[in-house]
Amino acid sequence: MKLANLEFDGAKALALVDAEKSVFWPIATLVPEFEGDMVQLVQSFAKFKGDLRPRGEGRPLSEAKVLAPIDQPRRNIFCVGKNYHEHAAEFQNSGFDSSAKDGEHAPEAPVIFTKPASTVIGPGVKIPRHTNVTSQLDYEAELGVVIGKAGRGIKKADAMDYVFGYTVINDFTARDLQKLHRQWFIGKSLDGFCPMGPYLVTADEVDGQNVDVKCWVNGELRQNSNTQQLIFDIPTLIETLSAGIELQPGDVIATGTPAGVGIGFNPPKFLQQGNVVRIEIQNVGVLENEVGE
Amino acid sequence: MKLANLEFDGAKALALVDAEKSVFWPIATLVPEFEGDMVQLVQSFAKFKGDLRPRGEGRPLSEAKVLAPIDQPRRNIFCVGKNYHEHAAEFQNSGFDSSAKDGEHAPEAPVIFTKPASTVIGPGVKIPRHTNVTSQLDYEAELGVVIGKAGRGIKKADAMDYVFGYTVINDFTARDLQKLHRQWFIGKSLDGFCPMGPYLVTADEVDGQNVDVKCWVNGELRQNSNTQQLIFDIPTLIETLSAGIELQPGDVIATGTPAGVGIGFNPPKFLQQGNVVRIEIQNVGVLENEVGE
Repeated sequence: MKLANLEFDGAKALALVDAEKSVFWPIATLVPEFEGDMVQLVQSFAKFKGDLRPRGEGRPLSEAKVLAPIDQPRRNIFCVGKNYHEHAAEFQNSGFDSSAKDGEHAPEAPVIFTKPASTVIGPGVKIPRHTNVTSQLDYEAELGVVIGKAGRGIKKADAMDYVFGYTVINDFTARDLQKLHRQWFIGKSLDGFCPMGPYLVTADEVDGQNVDVKCWVNGELRQNSNTQQLIFDIPTLIETLSAGIELQPGDVIATGTPAGVGIGFNPPKFLQQGNVVRIEIQNVGVLENEVGE
Repeated sequence: MKLANLEFDGAKALALVDAEKSVFWPIATLVPEFEGDMVQLVQSFAKFKGDLRPRGEGRPLSEAKVLAPIDQPRRNIFCVGKNYHEHAAEFQNSGFDSSAKDGEHAPEAPVIFTKPASTVIGPGVKIPRHTNVTSQLDYEAELGVVIGKAGRGIKKADAMDYVFGYTVINDFTARDLQKLHRQWFIGKSLDGFCPMGPYLVTADEVDGQNVDVKCWVNGELRQNSNTQQLIFDIPTLIETLSAGIELQPGDVIATGTPAGVGIGFNPPKFLQQGNVVRIEIQNVGVLENEVGE
């Protein structure tokens, strides 16, 4: 099923969505006893999932604004760097990677950093340019994995049981800051730097380990890969993170971006005001944001 | 004033503390209309501060257990790496710094990474060793700055107005993981890796820009510096972070550690089970934790 965080009738509320028919059913009408946001719905999903079925014809999605599905993550989003071979190479060659070893083609272990919740914006929201601190904006199309239940020491073989679902993430980056500050946090964490959405699609509908990830800038195809090409696959990421950090329902893991980002070009193609970044992940959805003021 | 997060009478509650007399007054008795945790108290401090005065003799601190003052940060703790010259040099020379440039003595800009809230533990709590993933545990004594009001684009000249107060932080680190994963997040973020406390001391009682920072391991003085030696001082850190990230009341910034950490020795002195790390920051407090199982 596809879950959404919508604004309709002047308020914010969760909904079940039929994306093909472009209709939704407010969760409040399907499960009146549930109160909370998407993270709380994920936490209590086992209790309510039986009732999360279309009832009646649904309301047209055109009456609603789609927000980021998890717009208030309880802690920073876990992000993975250099997790596709060709992207690891393009990043290494770009000169922007402050932590690369000479001649290294792929990291020995997952490279993890974070983005705070304040970076999250929804589909269609303009991405702030932060011209006071950066002039080198770049996109990164990524599959976002949402954790469904708590766990530490999760083994690869069990890891997919902990995946609640998927969404689309643009791991937006200020390359100059990413390089300047060495640790990537600041360059990845400016307010509005994590477009997310449109839906949170439950794991039963998606084989997250085999979906196409594509990204266009102003209609030009820039990134085109598949999560089969991940250097560290989803089970490995979950095993690595959970080895020492108890994962929690609602945690979001941005799994890394394929080759074709702006700094992969020579000279780099940084984003400008008005550029439109469109990311499509197979069976998960399309996330489109314009670079704003 | 010194604010504490205590456990007494079988429950958790905030308190005003007189550390010299070793007594406390529950916030609930001073400000009955306040409900919330320390972050909420920081948020609403202006409203209640007039009533936050000792009333009566107070209760003996021996009746309470002192918890981390901000045990539920709303987002990851902002941490600063390589922020004292001698420590930057010892880290560079140790071979454990995956992001150092050859011959670099100090970073050009603040090096920022994060630790999730799940790392926070209180004074006296044993630090988990995580022997399944690391054998190279290290301590880092740091002054923790707690932000008091929201702000973006804060200038250095105004930055100290945004400081609510200070606490003591041990930026505990698994050096092998810090090196292996390149970005430092994982090596810094294992559950329990952020001992914090004992108190949140309001800024009027401390000149955070000039306090001694000392750390002993099993009684041996290992770190001994002063925040005057910070490469990037507190106003610079606040200006840098807030340039693109709106700071929020309750945000915690760990300002970096002086020279004398375990990897500063040759061979490195990693922590073992039973070792006791004691950190004292002048006018802020003493934080002591033993390395556990």
